[in-house]
Amino acid sequence: MENFNFYNPVKILFGKGQIANIASEIPANAKILITYGGGSIKKNGVYEQVIAALAGKTFLEFGGIEANPHLETLLKAVELIRKEGIDFILAVGGGSVVDGTKFIAAAVPFEGDPWNILAQQVPVKAAIPFGAVLTLPATGSEMNTNAVVTKAATQEKLYFSSPLVFPKFSVLDPETTFSLPPRQVSNGIVDAYTHVMEQYLTYPVNAPLQDRMAESILLTLIEEGPKTLANLNDYQARANVMWCATMALNGLIGVGVPQDWATHMIGHELTALHGIDHAQTLAIVLPNMLTIQRDRKREKLLQYAERVWNLVDGDADLRIERAIAKTREFFEAVGVRTKLSDYGVGLDTIAPIIDRFEKRGFTALGEHRDVTPKVVEQVLTLCA
Amino acid sequence: MENFNFYNPVKILFGKGQIANIASEIPANAKILITYGGGSIKKNGVYEQVIAALAGKTFLEFGGIEANPHLETLLKAVELIRKEGIDFILAVGGGSVVDGTKFIAAAVPFEGDPWNILAQQVPVKAAIPFGAVLTLPATGSEMNTNAVVTKAATQEKLYFSSPLVFPKFSVLDPETTFSLPPRQVSNGIVDAYTHVMEQYLTYPVNAPLQDRMAESILLTLIEEGPKTLANLNDYQARANVMWCATMALNGLIGVGVPQDWATHMIGHELTALHGIDHAQTLAIVLPNMLTIQRDRKREKLLQYAERVWNLVDGDADLRIERAIAKTREFFEAVGVRTKLSDYGVGLDTIAPIIDRFEKRGFTALGEHRDVTPKVVEQVLTLCA
Repeated sequence: MENFNFYNPVKILFGKGQIANIASEIPANAKILITYGGGSIKKNGVYEQVIAALAGKTFLEFGGIEANPHLETLLKAVELIRKEGIDFILAVGGGSVVDGTKFIAAAVPFEGDPWNILAQQVPVKAAIPFGAVLTLPATGSEMNTNAVVTKAATQEKLYFSSPLVFPKFSVLDPETTFSLPPRQVSNGIVDAYTHVMEQYLTYPVNAPLQDRMAESILLTLIEEGPKTLANLNDYQARANVMWCATMALNGLIGVGVPQDWATHMIGHELTALHGIDHAQTLAIVLPNMLTIQRDRKREKLLQYAERVWNLVDGDADLRIERAIAKTREFFEAVGVRTKLSDYGVGLDTIAPIIDRFEKRGFTALGEHRDVTPKVVEQVLTLCA
Repeated sequence: MENFNFYNPVKILFGKGQIANIASEIPANAKILITYGGGSIKKNGVYEQVIAALAGKTFLEFGGIEANPHLETLLKAVELIRKEGIDFILAVGGGSVVDGTKFIAAAVPFEGDPWNILAQQVPVKAAIPFGAVLTLPATGSEMNTNAVVTKAATQEKLYFSSPLVFPKFSVLDPETTFSLPPRQVSNGIVDAYTHVMEQYLTYPVNAPLQDRMAESILLTLIEEGPKTLANLNDYQARANVMWCATMALNGLIGVGVPQDWATHMIGHELTALHGIDHAQTLAIVLPNMLTIQRDRKREKLLQYAERVWNLVDGDADLRIERAIAKTREFFEAVGVRTKLSDYGVGLDTIAPIIDRFEKRGFTALGEHRDVTPKVVEQVLTLCA
């Protein structure tokens, strides 16, 4: 395997009832801002649990953080925090609320235009501390340093990463996910699955433990994901998918191995331009990325075919084709469509996406840095 | 799965050459004590790498920490640290040096007799910070909060655990393990394997990801362990075993699942009374513990038989017997003998061990708390 550094100090409080334990994780006398999204937490009992757990503490609220959180919205929270002297944030919601809160946390002490944290990748030098109560297993944001933010004005979706925006703690209570709309449950499964694939489906570097751990998450998502859709109150299945989603992107399966992420970079553009859900973009792009890159990913595709889909007999090329087809079928089976046309998008989206990549200097993506604009065009053409 | 909390802030620096990077992980102006064992680090080049990396820093040395580190030795280091005003420790060695350093770190600010940290489990309220350069993959001590210390005067081997004794960082450079005696390499493989088994081979609680991650480590040790013995300079195999040993006991595979540890508790007594290497005691006890507890562990034994040893056909009881036999054969194949008689110990050791358990109030061990002194006697009888 390759050399690596690994560090992840996020404290995880996992299981039903754990929201009740957050007060002791927050500094005494902290002035807290609770950040949340569209208000579902006020309908499903999560908000009440959080308020009860914060009894005796001082807090304000900031709701309305949208999916693919908007810079414009987040900057209002930054203003509020500066004005009110807030010194701890509690994000209550899914990956968008957690991502948005990371940006807010870094933007508050940032000097200059906070958009440059994303657009110019200006390093974050400080951030106010925050914790999370996760209500949607998907992005892994609850246990990592990454955040993706969208500037609505220019339809740009960009990310940043900093060890200063590790959550201090994250509560993962599977019961908070019972009331999610099925579309979000489906999206979460595909998002976690693709996070694993971006770190696993590259080329072998003799890292058998990382490979097997990645396969462990894929197999568990394939096994447990459909159960969460078949019975919305299946606690154990929800718990297993929730833990899979966190483990998929907390850094551990990616240590010492090459990583891809080209599917994500293309997917972000589809979301920015057309408003397609993040996971839907991954379901569209990933199978076709694997198809176009099948020669460069050949060894890992054969391993994936065997260990994840039990495809061991017959022609190797056929096994690869079937493994890719199985991947697409799994996405469809958990309710996520896999073609651009399913979302009313035509191939005329290709030119502006490539134009955007070139303008940002993303000239070559993927684990070999060989996913050039030409390759992106080939991939997106297959997505029709 | 069961509810759990998980927190592990140890920074891992993995790979060849990483010792050169430790200076930036140690506070500037720290007065450092380097702790080490019998002096092998002065023969294999590790000491020189450490000294070079600490250029310009102030440090003292404390060598001579033995396998199963002795309270009596460690207290000398405590005295030195207090006298010299040391404020950071750098442990360079295997699990015994790291365990001993954890005890030293906690004992320095401890009020009263530090032995009570172990004997009376008095909670640790402070510890001086330390880092580790690991030279022997086995115990997992480099990424956890546990330490085992032996009081030579009374032949007592006891443990303590505290989040205050997480290493600040651990360097895992597989090249430092090339010069290990084969016996220590063998022991490390068995130790890591048994750590996984103590957390995996209990009863099912619907935690498929934890199960698969545990199986991932077992399969990788079975695959990579023998390679490290066949070719002492196989960097990749060493790297894979080293990462397996760390992952086996950094808390992750044990979240939300029952744990056993009865084999360890019995093994510690065999070490304390007879000086048998820790891993050797595990190789002696584990197969027989599985045999005696086979009814209570039946479901997981069948899963283990299928997923780790590919035993899927025939009578279920026979599969269980074969899986246990395979476990024993693996230990023997990597060079660790599995009978008490191999170490010149007879069954007359049973009475004193049970006497010690009863005196310490260890009346029932294991995941069901049903490994009574009577069961311990049954297990040890099979170890003849």
